[in-house]
Amino acid sequence: MNYRMSAYLLGQILLIVAGFLFVPFILTFSFGETGTQLAFGVTIAAMTAAGLPFVIKKPKDTTIHARGGFLTVALAWIILSLFGAMPFAISGHASFIDGLFEIVSGFTTTGATIFVEIEALPYSLLFWRSFSHWIGGMGVLVFVIAVLPKTNAAIVHLAKAEIPGPQFGKLVSKLRFTARILYGIYIALTLIEVVALLACGMPVFDSFITAFSTAGTGGFSSLNASIGGYNSLAVEIVTMIFMLLFSINMNVFYLIMIGRVKQAFRNEELWWLFGIVFVAIALVTASLMMNRVYSSFGETLRYSSYQVIAFVSTTGFGTANFDNWPVLAQSTLFVCMFIGGMAGSTAGGLKISRVMILSKASGRAIKKSISPRTVVSVKINRKNVEENVVKNVVVYFALIMIIYFISVILVSIEQSAMDFSTAVTAVATCLNNVGPGLSKVAGGFAEIGVFAKIVFIFDMLIGRLEIYPILLLFYYKAWKPV
Amino acid sequence: MNYRMSAYLLGQILLIVAGFLFVPFILTFSFGETGTQLAFGVTIAAMTAAGLPFVIKKPKDTTIHARGGFLTVALAWIILSLFGAMPFAISGHASFIDGLFEIVSGFTTTGATIFVEIEALPYSLLFWRSFSHWIGGMGVLVFVIAVLPKTNAAIVHLAKAEIPGPQFGKLVSKLRFTARILYGIYIALTLIEVVALLACGMPVFDSFITAFSTAGTGGFSSLNASIGGYNSLAVEIVTMIFMLLFSINMNVFYLIMIGRVKQAFRNEELWWLFGIVFVAIALVTASLMMNRVYSSFGETLRYSSYQVIAFVSTTGFGTANFDNWPVLAQSTLFVCMFIGGMAGSTAGGLKISRVMILSKASGRAIKKSISPRTVVSVKINRKNVEENVVKNVVVYFALIMIIYFISVILVSIEQSAMDFSTAVTAVATCLNNVGPGLSKVAGGFAEIGVFAKIVFIFDMLIGRLEIYPILLLFYYKAWKPV
Repeated sequence: MNYRMSAYLLGQILLIVAGFLFVPFILTFSFGETGTQLAFGVTIAAMTAAGLPFVIKKPKDTTIHARGGFLTVALAWIILSLFGAMPFAISGHASFIDGLFEIVSGFTTTGATIFVEIEALPYSLLFWRSFSHWIGGMGVLVFVIAVLPKTNAAIVHLAKAEIPGPQFGKLVSKLRFTARILYGIYIALTLIEVVALLACGMPVFDSFITAFSTAGTGGFSSLNASIGGYNSLAVEIVTMIFMLLFSINMNVFYLIMIGRVKQAFRNEELWWLFGIVFVAIALVTASLMMNRVYSSFGETLRYSSYQVIAFVSTTGFGTANFDNWPVLAQSTLFVCMFIGGMAGSTAGGLKISRVMILSKASGRAIKKSISPRTVVSVKINRKNVEENVVKNVVVYFALIMIIYFISVILVSIEQSAMDFSTAVTAVATCLNNVGPGLSKVAGGFAEIGVFAKIVFIFDMLIGRLEIYPILLLFYYKAWKPV
Repeated sequence: MNYRMSAYLLGQILLIVAGFLFVPFILTFSFGETGTQLAFGVTIAAMTAAGLPFVIKKPKDTTIHARGGFLTVALAWIILSLFGAMPFAISGHASFIDGLFEIVSGFTTTGATIFVEIEALPYSLLFWRSFSHWIGGMGVLVFVIAVLPKTNAAIVHLAKAEIPGPQFGKLVSKLRFTARILYGIYIALTLIEVVALLACGMPVFDSFITAFSTAGTGGFSSLNASIGGYNSLAVEIVTMIFMLLFSINMNVFYLIMIGRVKQAFRNEELWWLFGIVFVAIALVTASLMMNRVYSSFGETLRYSSYQVIAFVSTTGFGTANFDNWPVLAQSTLFVCMFIGGMAGSTAGGLKISRVMILSKASGRAIKKSISPRTVVSVKINRKNVEENVVKNVVVYFALIMIIYFISVILVSIEQSAMDFSTAVTAVATCLNNVGPGLSKVAGGFAEIGVFAKIVFIFDMLIGRLEIYPILLLFYYKAWKPV
């Protein structure tokens, strides 16, 4: 890899996020939070000091190949997380490992928290958690690409490593402009949600927090009881609509924006999303009705649809105590975690396009078992999917499941704070960047031990960066220069 | 498909299994079990009446292609199960659906039982359950191939569909002789186990029952407390050794038999099996020791090694109450279920050779992510695995996991008798033909409702016949003649 260029990019990213940190830093003044003032100040200073030396001189050779791109992205996320954990640790609100868990959960848009008393946290920390969702949702390197005046064409490898989904499609010919359009849509939708939440009567601070968490499909909230704590149907409807919107590929909004509405809706993945949400709501509603968990159909639908969309979008907001729901509801939510939202959105999980390719490739395998020599292509949007992409998707799924099984065993080593349901759902929720699980992690990860937390940190990063960048860190050949 | 030839084969299979049924039928006389005499008599008569018309005239066209082979195998297993359930249902010891569950669990070598009071069952029924493990372990069509005087070369498709594993290797040039050698080894090993169990002081009847269940890696026992009920270390050691032996590819024994011992042990899959068993025992032992579940290390090792081998071999015998074990032990056993034994053995699960190919293909994918154009083959036993086989294995895994997730939701519909741990482990245990699970299915499936039982029946058949034959039943194009 090109170490000079990689360091240059990492330096830039550190400075950019140090810049982002000025927002909570300023908040410490406006809210008079002296306890966290120093913590944010030190963090900003440290990031600047660490980043500055590397950006002073732009390297002559600015090429970044696939290998270097993957490693740079992985390193960027890990370095940012190490610095991002500092405000929690320095202010004394969490141990360093807890702070690291919290901020990785933030950047990866997981939303699993180690805090029990969220409402007791200073505003600046609350802001930083949710803001990290917003930053991580779209990706920091995508941001770099968007703000840089001119970028090398090879920088596409960075975007590929950070943008979720099996394929990366440019909207316009220049990657830089694609990144700007994407961020533009992202900012616009976030602001619309802020306004909508204000209109529901939500306090200004909470509106921003909630909108950031929704936009990144993260799930950190400023209340112990998550969105349910607002006790407002209006707030639930607004966040539900925006969770769904942020599970949709940004390209769909771009097409609508430039007037190609028909084409926008002629997207098979979009209809699969609607279909999955519909079926899941039907199953959860049926489950709750059969067990008379709520008194009326309306109330049941309110909770079931909210929780399904919170899980499919991998946001993980909560309005109900789903840990006590009957098994059909829980199994459905469990499977929804693995599915996730659309590729090219901020949602986690496998991504629906992968689920589509997996289903179609499976169907084809059944047909092919009786006539092995026939050649049939997997089709998405009536177009053939390259055989190479199909193979990559199937191998990706196998890798995720292998990592899943290994992680379940690893986190079980922390036996005292675990039971079987916890282990099985906690790994699923971290690997798919959802947030809550069942049993001991239904409310948060406060009870979990240090070793398991480290495993979860890796699972969250593996899920967000789609396996390869993180695993390559442990492959010595990836590190060789050029 | 060639309906005439298919019917001819199905007729033969019915007559052969009707012949097998004479053993429990004779037992009803020797034990004076009048209650089941009629049941077995009627079943034998019905099978003979159903099978005879189709075998009178051998069809002129005896070709069986892949498609016909798959369907014939699937139909054979379903028809045999329907008839095989009759002794339970007619004798009044179970409802028809319960009897069907029990015998499918038998033939597929799962060993999940719907009976609570096993010790109260007549000897003839106890015999029939365990004997069905023995019959199903090697496969009925393999038996047909072994006993038929001369078979069409195309009949290899039948063997392919019934013998577990990603590839089917003939030992000798003629399939018929391969089948005879396999059955010869199978019978010999079973008899050796019977003798060993008798030497441990086990009653004659129990020795046969236990040997049949071990040979098929099934798990039905004649005691409520499974093998633990004998309270004999000797019995535990014998069954443990034979569970391990029956998880080994029969080819290994054949090579040893013909004196090629070195070649027999130069089998990568064999060493993976030993490695997996070793690691799993270490994890479970550590888990039990840390939680001081048993008083001494010796006792801990006794229970942990037994349970690990019972799960890896997918037999499912029990000597300990693993439902109360700590989470690390449970997670390890859960993952062992999916791995299973070696291809070409009677064990279930994915099969270790598939796990090897999956791991190696995953490792390759990580390496390939940084240099996509390099061509590296997956190697097993230092030989390249055909790219086609790799692809089939990865798709197979994807299909199993998709069926797994769908089944978890489906069985959860039976909400009253389910909780999350039960659903997640019960599907795993049925799909991988193991037997016991956690929570409500740790002891048996008696509490489970009818709808979930039907799902489990399909899961067991899908697991045993490795997906395709059963799924093809629902694909209309598979049914078209020729």
